[in-house]
Amino acid sequence: MNKQKGKSDDHSGDNLSFLVNRHSNGADTVIHVNGIDIGGGQVVIIAGPCAVESRKQLLDTAKGVHAGGANMLRGGAFKPRTSPYSFQGLGEEGLKYLKEARELTGLPIVTEVMDTRDMEMVCEYTDIVQIGSRNMHNFPLLKEAGICGKPVLFKRGLMATIDEYLLAAEYILREGNDQVILCERGIRTFETSTRNTLDLSAVPVLKKKTHLPVIVDPSHGTGQRWLVPIMAKAAIVVGADGIMVEVHNHPEEALSDGFQSLYPEEFEQMVKEMEEIAHVMGKELSQVKHLSV
Amino acid sequence: MNKQKGKSDDHSGDNLSFLVNRHSNGADTVIHVNGIDIGGGQVVIIAGPCAVESRKQLLDTAKGVHAGGANMLRGGAFKPRTSPYSFQGLGEEGLKYLKEARELTGLPIVTEVMDTRDMEMVCEYTDIVQIGSRNMHNFPLLKEAGICGKPVLFKRGLMATIDEYLLAAEYILREGNDQVILCERGIRTFETSTRNTLDLSAVPVLKKKTHLPVIVDPSHGTGQRWLVPIMAKAAIVVGADGIMVEVHNHPEEALSDGFQSLYPEEFEQMVKEMEEIAHVMGKELSQVKHLSV
Amino acid sequence: MNKQKGKSDDHSGDNLSFLVNRHSNGADTVIHVNGIDIGGGQVVIIAGPCAVESRKQLLDTAKGVHAGGANMLRGGAFKPRTSPYSFQGLGEEGLKYLKEARELTGLPIVTEVMDTRDMEMVCEYTDIVQIGSRNMHNFPLLKEAGICGKPVLFKRGLMATIDEYLLAAEYILREGNDQVILCERGIRTFETSTRNTLDLSAVPVLKKKTHLPVIVDPSHGTGQRWLVPIMAKAAIVVGADGIMVEVHNHPEEALSDGFQSLYPEEFEQMVKEMEEIAHVMGKELSQVKHLSV
Amino acid sequence: MNKQKGKSDDHSGDNLSFLVNRHSNGADTVIHVNGIDIGGGQVVIIAGPCAVESRKQLLDTAKGVHAGGANMLRGGAFKPRTSPYSFQGLGEEGLKYLKEARELTGLPIVTEVMDTRDMEMVCEYTDIVQIGSRNMHNFPLLKEAGICGKPVLFKRGLMATIDEYLLAAEYILREGNDQVILCERGIRTFETSTRNTLDLSAVPVLKKKTHLPVIVDPSHGTGQRWLVPIMAKAAIVVGADGIMVEVHNHPEEALSDGFQSLYPEEFEQMVKEMEEIAHVMGKELSQVKHLSV
Repeated sequence: MNKQKGKSDDHSGDNLSFLVNRHSNGADTVIHVNGIDIGGGQVVIIAGPCAVESRKQLLDTAKGVHAGGANMLRGGAFKPRTSPYSFQGLGEEGLKYLKEARELTGLPIVTEVMDTRDMEMVCEYTDIVQIGSRNMHNFPLLKEAGICGKPVLFKRGLMATIDEYLLAAEYILREGNDQVILCERGIRTFETSTRNTLDLSAVPVLKKKTHLPVIVDPSHGTGQRWLVPIMAKAAIVVGADGIMVEVHNHPEEALSDGFQSLYPEEFEQMVKEMEEIAHVMGKELSQVKHLSV
Repeated sequence: MNKQKGKSDDHSGDNLSFLVNRHSNGADTVIHVNGIDIGGGQVVIIAGPCAVESRKQLLDTAKGVHAGGANMLRGGAFKPRTSPYSFQGLGEEGLKYLKEARELTGLPIVTEVMDTRDMEMVCEYTDIVQIGSRNMHNFPLLKEAGICGKPVLFKRGLMATIDEYLLAAEYILREGNDQVILCERGIRTFETSTRNTLDLSAVPVLKKKTHLPVIVDPSHGTGQRWLVPIMAKAAIVVGADGIMVEVHNHPEEALSDGFQSLYPEEFEQMVKEMEEIAHVMGKELSQVKHLSV
Repeated sequence: MNKQKGKSDDHSGDNLSFLVNRHSNGADTVIHVNGIDIGGGQVVIIAGPCAVESRKQLLDTAKGVHAGGANMLRGGAFKPRTSPYSFQGLGEEGLKYLKEARELTGLPIVTEVMDTRDMEMVCEYTDIVQIGSRNMHNFPLLKEAGICGKPVLFKRGLMATIDEYLLAAEYILREGNDQVILCERGIRTFETSTRNTLDLSAVPVLKKKTHLPVIVDPSHGTGQRWLVPIMAKAAIVVGADGIMVEVHNHPEEALSDGFQSLYPEEFEQMVKEMEEIAHVMGKELSQVKHLSV
Repeated sequence: MNKQKGKSDDHSGDNLSFLVNRHSNGADTVIHVNGIDIGGGQVVIIAGPCAVESRKQLLDTAKGVHAGGANMLRGGAFKPRTSPYSFQGLGEEGLKYLKEARELTGLPIVTEVMDTRDMEMVCEYTDIVQIGSRNMHNFPLLKEAGICGKPVLFKRGLMATIDEYLLAAEYILREGNDQVILCERGIRTFETSTRNTLDLSAVPVLKKKTHLPVIVDPSHGTGQRWLVPIMAKAAIVVGADGIMVEVHNHPEEALSDGFQSLYPEEFEQMVKEMEEIAHVMGKELSQVKHLSV
């Protein structure tokens, strides 16, 4: 990626490349979160419900994914929904349940922020701040993430090219935060059999262009439960540093993304199969160095 | 568009349709801004530079578009740019120049807001708040626009379907603000001869589905100066309630979008040609009821 | 478009550009078919059913479009259908009905060929050979069209860029046939409200790049009857040399494309409205110099 | 996929589903070619140059891929090229070299046919007839493939949905030929870092919908040599019955697709790595039961 300067660009010429770029001698960025490494040759597994729907739903699912081998817990308190009449999330109440789930399982938390005004509050609860696909070009939010002091899980936009995606990540790094985890989660294509088309070749391309860790979200990438384990394993083969998947203790009752959420037992089986694949690829699943249940 | 309720949808069933929907007996929404009507059978012309770059650049261009037949002045103080190293806009300083340009020309102002935290400040200066394509799914911003008390110029996302676009507009109306102007500005396709592909058939489709006024932005829709007048005229034929175009007093020196910005004399010529087309279509250009220069 | 030569390219270097390219001093190519000009400042109107379904259906529709102002008659005897279980056309029987319709109305015939083996037979019946979107990259068929001795109506592929389209047209011209009419007929996008997205800006872009005439097919471009007249008029404004539309005497009974086929009276009304638009643009509809009914 | 009948569909209603559909009790179709099975739990490897360029180039490359572990030899004698000035293939001369390569190595041959008139001749030389992406909707060619008496390697179109692809395959099966190998080879997206986007999730979706074997072409799917082995291994994980890759003895001198063609030694290394992955997935590479070198 070459630098495309604007005319009034005040960024001095002494930097020959973008901060996101992989340098000739450069090592991978490894992000440490509560004893878990992301990006250092291990495979991290982030799992949990699409949305935090209730205290019980979250805690039950958290226990399930913890038992099944997850390293981190995901769950949305603020939900970007296409329709204003769909469930919009529990807000701060949801964040409190996430905190409780962390205390219960020891799993670090990943949750999404959508509004610059919520960044500070969300960071009080979460271990990793997520910026979702729809906000890939929400530049004020990216800048705020750049100064929030937490690692950022930053998802690729639905129709962003890889270079556009890296330029957007540059907004975060430029503010001083290089703790950024990239996430391929499917792009919009004409195919209708899957919700999106998971672009697995984006993983090696990203790994070549940038030093940042790259994970894959096969839940949004496919939109169908049965495809998730298949694509999660393929993600390891193409070099992903981990996966993020949706798991729900009762997917058939989920307020969002039920079709693509794994049952806890499916999740556990998937983790076992991923372990075999990781082994062949010379990798291993991240050690769960959590406190205790 | 049918209502797709979430399970926990608290929106009661007494509303049979979305607020954006055109009703069988429903009239068009007409938006009144400083004596200019948008949506009432007239054709509104919004023109100005992509970005406010300096006091002189803005005032010169404002005088040019006013003389050329514009009804409103556009100009960005906050600019969403793909690269963090491109010109990001002058911020509040730019808003002050816009206010000065309005006092000078009498033209109402349209300017973009990108951050919920800036909404109040932007509304102190502008007549119409613009939400850009990249923020079509920035739901907190849409909700804020719904309570801001100003008309909203709301652009279609680069790859949004018309139904997704209308659902996003619903976020604004649901908060109580039905003063929303829709804007087709090109969608992303595989074509490289143009910056985007201007989807002119979206105009009649939108006019059929919703009561809101619909304008067209041929500058972003094509990305090339010479195509702008051609597509502006076609926009009138397909039923647009107006156009928004980029004009710069010195396009060759513009900090952004120079290739697609008209010279003032090209703009003036275009307005004359649009008048002829509007006449054949039984419409007329909005009357410029401004104060005076 | 720059020439991208292959290594073993035997095309000598004395030609500085492609045969399809517009030259600095070059005039438009005008194609003469039975007294009708295509490409010479007039607007040609080609109309008829999607498929020739029966003798009566074709002759009735032919009389309808002739009365309504068509200059040429279209109708498919060989139909490219997504499913093998859909109506595939009448074959040579359909060609015979087309010939009879020409004798009846004086309208020249446009019909599609799909197989190199049928080219000779189709040319015995038709005035213009059509190559459809699905065959834009059927190179043996293009080469055969290049030596067939008839003008070729050559449709843009569903997802072809303009440069790919012109390179494909070059296959025809290179064989010695420069009687090629280009046709924008909509490209595939994510929009679902319309069958395809009619890319009207492709018309001025094509007219700038090539000397060949360019027409528009708003029937396939939109897939909806009510949108056809709207987009047909806009096509004139952007500089199209004509349109091709589907008309059926009983669209509700059509074996294919019924939703997008105009009733004869709608067609007649559309032609009147097009005449007004053409007049403003300094053009006129092609004179119907046919024999008699 | 439900059957979408045309009105005049003469296909009687006794068939409840398409011939390509997987039936509840149905086994996979396994295709036998000269002792090699395609589709029966083994992984087939088809390799060779994009185009047959000369006798020496083909025979050298054939020996290379044979030594490296290929089961079949690919090579184009008729080349579909975007530009008419690019190398178009050697025609029958190329077919003769392919035949010679088969005699030399024992590897069965796969080569493309583009014109219905060439089908008979191509079948005299080849073991498997290939129909390329650009001809996915060349229905006369599909029908001819349905009666040609040879297995057909049928590639997915660049922007075809899976259902459109299966409907096109149905054209071949309906003529009585169920020896069809499907091939995912990348779809067109907005991404520019890769030539196309290889849609690996299409493999399990296809395997669920149809009984036909499915292979993957990572050469066209990525357009870059270094990505080919990565995606080839991932293809095995998602369930592909094999791969087809481009190998050239001197890629830097190739007349087409040099950037994506493997060097023979890269190919050999890739096959070894694929073997490991296949083993974990409970599969094995097809046995090379050829004659001898």
